Amino acid sequence: MGAAMLTGVITEILIPVAAVIGIAFALLQWLLVSAVKLSPERQTPAGGNKKNGFAADFLIEEEEGLNDHNVVVKCAEIQNAISEGATSFLFTEYQYVGVFMAVFAVLIFLFLGSVEGFSTKSQPCTYSKDKFCKPALANAVFSTVSFLLGAVTSVVSGFLGMKIATYANARTTLEARKGVGKAFITAFRSGAVMGFLLAANGLLVLYIAINLFKLYYGDDWEGLFEAITGYGLGGSSMALFGRVGGGIYTKAADVGADLVGKVERNIPEDDPRNPAVIADNVGDNVGDIAGMGSDLFGSYAESSCAALVVASISSFGINHDFTAMCYPLLISSMGIIVCLITTLFATDFFEIKAVKDIEPALKRQLIISTALMTIGIGIVSWIALPSSFTIFNFGEQKKVKNWELFFCVAIGLWAGLVIGFVTEYFTSNAYSPVQDVANSCRTGAATNVIFGLALGYKSVIIPIFAIAVSIFVSFSLAAMYGIAVAALGMLSTIATGLAIDAYGPISDNAGGIAEMAGMSHRIRERTDALDAAGNTTAAIGKGFAIGSAALVSLALFGAFVSRAAISTVDVLTPKVFIGLIVGAMLPYWFSAMTMKSVGRAALEMVEEVRRQFNSIPGLMEGNAKPDYATCVKISTDASIKEMIPPGALVMLTPLIVGTFLGVETLSGVLAGALVSGVQIAISASNTGGAWDNAKKYIEAGASEHARALGPKGSDAHKAAVIGDTIGDPLKDTSGPSLNILIKLMAVESLVFAPFFAAHGGLLFKIL
Amino acid sequence: MGAAMLTGVITEILIPVAAVIGIAFALLQWLLVSAVKLSPERQTPAGGNKKNGFAADFLIEEEEGLNDHNVVVKCAEIQNAISEGATSFLFTEYQYVGVFMAVFAVLIFLFLGSVEGFSTKSQPCTYSKDKFCKPALANAVFSTVSFLLGAVTSVVSGFLGMKIATYANARTTLEARKGVGKAFITAFRSGAVMGFLLAANGLLVLYIAINLFKLYYGDDWEGLFEAITGYGLGGSSMALFGRVGGGIYTKAADVGADLVGKVERNIPEDDPRNPAVIADNVGDNVGDIAGMGSDLFGSYAESSCAALVVASISSFGINHDFTAMCYPLLISSMGIIVCLITTLFATDFFEIKAVKDIEPALKRQLIISTALMTIGIGIVSWIALPSSFTIFNFGEQKKVKNWELFFCVAIGLWAGLVIGFVTEYFTSNAYSPVQDVANSCRTGAATNVIFGLALGYKSVIIPIFAIAVSIFVSFSLAAMYGIAVAALGMLSTIATGLAIDAYGPISDNAGGIAEMAGMSHRIRERTDALDAAGNTTAAIGKGFAIGSAALVSLALFGAFVSRAAISTVDVLTPKVFIGLIVGAMLPYWFSAMTMKSVGRAALEMVEEVRRQFNSIPGLMEGNAKPDYATCVKISTDASIKEMIPPGALVMLTPLIVGTFLGVETLSGVLAGALVSGVQIAISASNTGGAWDNAKKYIEAGASEHARALGPKGSDAHKAAVIGDTIGDPLKDTSGPSLNILIKLMAVESLVFAPFFAAHGGLLFKIL
Repeated sequence: MGAAMLTGVITEILIPVAAVIGIAFALLQWLLVSAVKLSPERQTPAGGNKKNGFAADFLIEEEEGLNDHNVVVKCAEIQNAISEGATSFLFTEYQYVGVFMAVFAVLIFLFLGSVEGFSTKSQPCTYSKDKFCKPALANAVFSTVSFLLGAVTSVVSGFLGMKIATYANARTTLEARKGVGKAFITAFRSGAVMGFLLAANGLLVLYIAINLFKLYYGDDWEGLFEAITGYGLGGSSMALFGRVGGGIYTKAADVGADLVGKVERNIPEDDPRNPAVIADNVGDNVGDIAGMGSDLFGSYAESSCAALVVASISSFGINHDFTAMCYPLLISSMGIIVCLITTLFATDFFEIKAVKDIEPALKRQLIISTALMTIGIGIVSWIALPSSFTIFNFGEQKKVKNWELFFCVAIGLWAGLVIGFVTEYFTSNAYSPVQDVANSCRTGAATNVIFGLALGYKSVIIPIFAIAVSIFVSFSLAAMYGIAVAALGMLSTIATGLAIDAYGPISDNAGGIAEMAGMSHRIRERTDALDAAGNTTAAIGKGFAIGSAALVSLALFGAFVSRAAISTVDVLTPKVFIGLIVGAMLPYWFSAMTMKSVGRAALEMVEEVRRQFNSIPGLMEGNAKPDYATCVKISTDASIKEMIPPGALVMLTPLIVGTFLGVETLSGVLAGALVSGVQIAISASNTGGAWDNAKKYIEAGASEHARALGPKGSDAHKAAVIGDTIGDPLKDTSGPSLNILIKLMAVESLVFAPFFAAHGGLLFKIL
Repeated sequence: MGAAMLTGVITEILIPVAAVIGIAFALLQWLLVSAVKLSPERQTPAGGNKKNGFAADFLIEEEEGLNDHNVVVKCAEIQNAISEGATSFLFTEYQYVGVFMAVFAVLIFLFLGSVEGFSTKSQPCTYSKDKFCKPALANAVFSTVSFLLGAVTSVVSGFLGMKIATYANARTTLEARKGVGKAFITAFRSGAVMGFLLAANGLLVLYIAINLFKLYYGDDWEGLFEAITGYGLGGSSMALFGRVGGGIYTKAADVGADLVGKVERNIPEDDPRNPAVIADNVGDNVGDIAGMGSDLFGSYAESSCAALVVASISSFGINHDFTAMCYPLLISSMGIIVCLITTLFATDFFEIKAVKDIEPALKRQLIISTALMTIGIGIVSWIALPSSFTIFNFGEQKKVKNWELFFCVAIGLWAGLVIGFVTEYFTSNAYSPVQDVANSCRTGAATNVIFGLALGYKSVIIPIFAIAVSIFVSFSLAAMYGIAVAALGMLSTIATGLAIDAYGPISDNAGGIAEMAGMSHRIRERTDALDAAGNTTAAIGKGFAIGSAALVSLALFGAFVSRAAISTVDVLTPKVFIGLIVGAMLPYWFSAMTMKSVGRAALEMVEEVRRQFNSIPGLMEGNAKPDYATCVKISTDASIKEMIPPGALVMLTPLIVGTFLGVETLSGVLAGALVSGVQIAISASNTGGAWDNAKKYIEAGASEHARALGPKGSDAHKAAVIGDTIGDPLKDTSGPSLNILIKLMAVESLVFAPFFAAHGGLLFKIL
């Protein structure tokens, strides 16, 4: 039972220092991106010299005749339009969600306060009956506060991500004139800004909250970390609305733009004549950037909370070993440092010279960060943990050695890598699965869809085995705490993961801006190559998000069961089994809602785009400007209106089930939703990714096989476009929202567990 | 604890009498169908008079100029071709599956015999330790025998169904000349032949087997009914291959025929110029008829076995109360009588006069049979059960009253009706869901697919609640026995259910024959109307099959857990949880295999059909005959080859998991596969059904809305055809096979439970 090497004081210093380093690094990246100027005036020393006016000295041999004043102004204009659209949407969204969150905060306070009838007297602790803990009312107050804190941090994470993305997209376009390497670095650095800001912010706020709450809670760590779980709930609640709202927004615009533009009018993607094109680009930023940011922040917050709440009732908490207690935060701190080094490999140590270097460079990021992090975990486990300790395991204490905990974190980390690479295999057009799907386009859209669905279903197999093995190993080694730190391990390289992720939509936007600004074919080819790589990394990012969500949910589920004082969740009791089967149904219900929403909004968008093409004279010829604002409004209204029902389904289900049917049925619901949701989430996002890249495979025509299917506009290509359009809501709306569904229901159950344990199961009590 | 009214002797008589009545009724229906003559010679008293030669006296005002010798000959020819194709396919299929079954029979014998090392000595009983039971070797022998018996009965059921269907299809076509009512009765009677033969045969064989086994087992009912469970395993194993093989066959042909015929060549469905048309019609008979027959027979056999095995260790078995023990068989006997009366409502009490009467008549069948059966269940529960008895409940005995058991059966029966009507609501084009899907075709195939998938997901909600409520009520009232009899309740009207189900493909074939024989537009309209109603009833049938499969699997699962001597299946143990998540993945793996198979086979078929159209001169003009046989061969070869991997996945998973990971993990796998599979199965079959009927909605153009989307060949219609094609493998291959997956894994685990309990979990034992 040797004590940890790291003293409490050093821990208190190390965590915020790592967070601050992360933030500083993010700001440095932002500074480097901002070196690309978007205001042509300052770039044209010889005012009248329009030709080569932009940094003429080094650009001249790269792109002639294009780097003129007009292009820069146009890019800046388009960027502004996108940024304004995104900002205004997010503000509208936050207003609506803000009301919901306020109401929910009141609910939290009332439900949790009522557990002991709003008494202000201290009560015997749940797990150490001889000690006194703070009253339930304190838990109600601090849970509410941490809930709001989590929600605000999530908003800030998503919003900052969107801001940097809309700051970087036009800059990436302009850099693309200098070559693919420069453009890559700009896009990647911008992604890194988001990744590091988010990881460091999340850590810092959590750390500060713990220290502030400690002023009140003092030695009552059980109560302290129970109240902290509200942070995870707040983060994930916001993420749900962000993902669903943003997902509906982006896909309504995307599907609408494609259906009329590409299919009916035969104009290229992102053509400025298409009225939905701005809405489409705004969508990438609010859906794929802000939504993804909130989502991964939520996972991160929840896995930290799950680990902390289990640790607080284990020997770390009981013995008040602060360093060991902070093990999850130290892992995250180490993650920031490791990702910082990893980033340098992409931006400084290697250089991208050709299009074919892009995807390997991004994949290298994953491998390097995972390898370095394995060492990092080893160091943290060695210095921050006692050589042996006990972990709470459903009423018993399980003895664990520090190297065993190392294995728990490491297996989560490596399982993430496996999921990432499997995802890549099934969604990159360099491998046979996507090529098979592309090949099936020969016989039309129907076979394309059949093959694509089959691919998605098949892609589930290995990730599930990877998750199952991690669960088995970490569960066996360190019970529920093992699962929680495995999830944290998978998320420990979140800064790099997010950088790669955010890189995708930035490149996508950069391509859109190039097209809209009328830049040359060469530029568009470069941004397309960046984008294609981004498509695959986006799928990898989704794989991580889902894999970690599965582990996090299970850890939260375990913490819930402990806190709700259930000893077993026996499938063979009717209460649990009906929960299980209904829980497994919820992801379908949720997907039905979100997909229908996208479909409905897209129909509206199609009608509007058609109307504009038919009624605005000269639009097709490029002589008249379309009415972008109406399309933006359709997307905004649709997503605000349509995000409420699925959001309410997820937020209210645990409350209703817990209150009326009790904790056993709720346990069943959580387990059912988890095991069913993870499958649909993986298959939906991989099916969508594969269709997207099958289309790109035909368009790029890089092999003989691909050329036989193409070119653009061929029957096979048309079939591929249909598949791509179907995949949009699957991969960007319903699929990725599902991991929030499973996490959120689990963390919500955990937060409300004391209430359910005290007053839940009304229906059965009445019967 | 009053004894049952019915004495054992009367029970011994009643059951076979009911079965024989069922068989006699089926033969009577067959006789009535055979009154429609297919040999024109005997119908043309005035040999040379071709015009009006066919029963000229009463046909003349119905159809002029068409009822000639040629048409009848042509119909007979086509019917022969279909019948021969189907027979030859089934024989080929049975040969391959026969080998598999023989190997599996040996496995059963070896695994079960090894439990006590092939000892021939009697052992103390598992549940009554003071008594002696037959040795494990006897269980091995009799389980193997009943396995083979179940397999053979399943083959007979499927084969007879196919025979009568291919006997009736041309007769339905010919009767359509006399009006829609006559055609309906012919198709419906033929369906009834299959329904009654199957229900009565299944009951009779099971009854005889029990009585024969009793000669050896004597008083050891525990052993007797354990051995009988092999009957369910045999039935479902055959059903799996029947469904998968038949499903791949029919959909490869259907998709292939549609893709080239309807989409590329713009010729109608079932046009004789299409080389895949015979394969398509053969497919309906081997997939939808033989496959469905085997499937429902399997469910029926399994729910009976599950109920019997639980009863044998309850007070019925312990007190050797034969009548109460036979309660499940008495329910089925009553079901045959009730369905007989119900059938008369369709064939004799009411008359179909117009197209719009068809669907109500079929729905009335469901309502009447359910209402009458409720009374029937009441009678059986009253006369066959003691007023109070005890039921085995995981090691304890639960006290149950006879009226409580009545509620268990009745709730299963009524849940079936609810599922049926929800299915109808979501798949019939009379309601808004399908109309919405049709409407989404306005914007192309992509939105059609998005809306269709969303519809399928949404259609899961109410059936799952219906299943959950039945489970909760029947579980609470009578533990696992309650679930088993609830499943039996849902299947008690199987004869009517199957009659309605088989009616669909018969009508579909009748339409095909009318088209191929070049009969008039009027005739084709009548058969189309029959077919459209059949589409919805097929979906309803699938709903029943899935709902009952969910209940059956749970009952088998419960029996397995009892027999494997596990006391709880706690989700919060790593062994169970990894089973749960992997189990939930299996339906996806299985669907990926089957859908890819259909896709691959369809690609081959498309190539062949295109080749024929391109290389056979005069084919499009109707001057040359296509080479039907090659297409039949492609379907046959593909389905034989492709059915093995998914079949092996399902059959081997329980063996591998049980042997290497043990009974806890296997329990998790069963629960996971059940709760996940039932959702995909329902959503897949409803999505497919909805797409099919959305297409028919546009084609029929019965409302202003529908006409605005049509006519045939419009863009919206083309989009609808794509959806229909995608739905084909979902609704007829992967979807319905999934209910066999969940049942089969459960019954297989039950049969092998003694082996797993004795020798399972090797991997954990080694670690």
